[in-house]
Amino acid sequence: MFFADRKKKAQALVKSADADALLITHLPDVRYLCGFTGSNAALAFYGRRVVLFTDGRYTTQARQEAVGARVVIAKKSALREACAWLETAGATRCGFDAGHTTVAALDAMREMVSGKLRRRFFLPLQSPIAKIREVKDAGEIALMRESALLGCRLYEHILGFIAAGISETAVAAELEYAARLAGAEAMSFDTIVASGLRSALPHGHATGARLPRNGFLTLDFGVILNGYCSDMTRTVYLGRASETERGVYDAVLAAQEAAVAAVAPGATCGDVDEAARSVLRQAKLDRWFTHSTGHGVGLEIHEGPRIAAAQQQKLEPGMVITIEPGVYMEGKFGIRIEDMVLVTATGHEVLTPAPKAWTTL
Amino acid sequence: MFFADRKKKAQALVKSADADALLITHLPDVRYLCGFTGSNAALAFYGRRVVLFTDGRYTTQARQEAVGARVVIAKKSALREACAWLETAGATRCGFDAGHTTVAALDAMREMVSGKLRRRFFLPLQSPIAKIREVKDAGEIALMRESALLGCRLYEHILGFIAAGISETAVAAELEYAARLAGAEAMSFDTIVASGLRSALPHGHATGARLPRNGFLTLDFGVILNGYCSDMTRTVYLGRASETERGVYDAVLAAQEAAVAAVAPGATCGDVDEAARSVLRQAKLDRWFTHSTGHGVGLEIHEGPRIAAAQQQKLEPGMVITIEPGVYMEGKFGIRIEDMVLVTATGHEVLTPAPKAWTTL
Repeated sequence: MFFADRKKKAQALVKSADADALLITHLPDVRYLCGFTGSNAALAFYGRRVVLFTDGRYTTQARQEAVGARVVIAKKSALREACAWLETAGATRCGFDAGHTTVAALDAMREMVSGKLRRRFFLPLQSPIAKIREVKDAGEIALMRESALLGCRLYEHILGFIAAGISETAVAAELEYAARLAGAEAMSFDTIVASGLRSALPHGHATGARLPRNGFLTLDFGVILNGYCSDMTRTVYLGRASETERGVYDAVLAAQEAAVAAVAPGATCGDVDEAARSVLRQAKLDRWFTHSTGHGVGLEIHEGPRIAAAQQQKLEPGMVITIEPGVYMEGKFGIRIEDMVLVTATGHEVLTPAPKAWTTL
Repeated sequence: MFFADRKKKAQALVKSADADALLITHLPDVRYLCGFTGSNAALAFYGRRVVLFTDGRYTTQARQEAVGARVVIAKKSALREACAWLETAGATRCGFDAGHTTVAALDAMREMVSGKLRRRFFLPLQSPIAKIREVKDAGEIALMRESALLGCRLYEHILGFIAAGISETAVAAELEYAARLAGAEAMSFDTIVASGLRSALPHGHATGARLPRNGFLTLDFGVILNGYCSDMTRTVYLGRASETERGVYDAVLAAQEAAVAAVAPGATCGDVDEAARSVLRQAKLDRWFTHSTGHGVGLEIHEGPRIAAAQQQKLEPGMVITIEPGVYMEGKFGIRIEDMVLVTATGHEVLTPAPKAWTTL
């Protein structure tokens, strides 16, 4: 049901782009459009026909997975056979994803069609499927809810494991082990476990550093469950915090809650960013909020829309975004709090309802 | 020491390409050339000057990591500031990696330089740093040896864990947990645990399927340690094998050992592939060997050279490649055996000396 709708959207896009064919090679787009999860694929659209080209490693898997697409196992290059099929079928102008096709790949693709077609055959489109994927359908929302909830359960689990003296790496290992046993295919990105002074690094991947007796611990992680990424961040305190530390935490939490509250259909991404940023500005902490407020998430960990200053794009029901303001004081500490938020018809729904009130361990 | 040599190689490449500047944005290339591991970077070469552009998330980390490059924290876009710097510095023709730059990115880069330069400024090069990286230097070989040995230790560990009835996912979880505790930053690809009928899938990622009482189990996994990927495969048998099963295993092992024996400087990649393929041909099993024999490995899991039929590229000392023939009989079983092999001045050295003789559990 969902694949049929997605295919229709792609076919409508071909028409509106003034092309008669479409060639998709970015793997998350292929998975979105027909369910195939292999590591080599070219999905070709021409008229009502959709053909998935892959290679001999995926003979069985492609047959099991692909929905609404005929499967062709290419003898040599899946891409070459896709181009040949499009030309033979009668295509004259084929859209491709300029955002996921390299300059070298386009050169190669041009060599794969006849000389007479070569000059005009390929039409660059700006990440067309990524644009469609920004709004999740009901099938995706159900899967993302599960993925996000698994993240929350893992957070609860890891709180019982954390203690001063344990290494950041051991925390990441425990989290990832529990994720695997709970059914996650993988983590959606390298787990961030940043403690003490290292919490001031927005992207502090787990190291051998030991958790401090007194200091912050930032956990930013996500799982991939049924292909869909979760993404959440919590910052907790080990030991006894100073008033300053507590004060900055409260400001980040207020900023995060203000941005979540601003999420609604019709709001611009810039409005949501500003909702977080203005709270930190009033607290005179905005100069340490050095990144944007969030991003879309789905089959990939970073998707559209961008929740950043001055972004005019409007939120639409079905978008799933992160809201993750942070404050990073080099040489002192850092704090970030992040939820996944679904834009609904009337407002929003937080998909990661794990506690975010001040927590000391 | 190593970074200085690598920088010199890149600078020599600029000259030989008839350019006066070079812009590198592919992250493993950036890491190779200056040691920076952040997720956003543009490394610009002009004359003797090398500048690393990144963003505010990496202010501290870039300063700590970057060797032999001045660090600039871009206010908005690292790429835009790199282009502006190259133009201001006086560059007139700048090589870029056509194999890792999208069509959309090249369009954007062209907008980032003045109109008068736009048409001729960017010169497409075919993955120039990837070519340099095919031959590992002594610093890299030391790290790859460690990474490969960690893989072997993990294989030994997991043999003690495997038993009929355990799920594939639990095996993967245990392997990955042990890898993390042993210091791995991550796995180099989604762990393959394919048991029973599923062993016939060359890329059978771990599922909830239970290990059989009688049947093959293929484990294909790798760790990332200090940035460098390992990659190895072993196939073991649970229970009592049939004569056919044992016979096919012996043929795959003979093919794998023949290919390893063929690895030497001056041998072509096609020769090495044929060494494995001809053994399977004699055993009338070659039609089930549906992929190439191997690939280079290093900072990325798939690098050059390709060890495939008819490849004329010659092996050189310092290359690290995988040798991984396999036989996949749909509906029955599959077997693959894989080592990482270093090309030495006089022949080769297997970096993954874990047992590969017939093993039953």
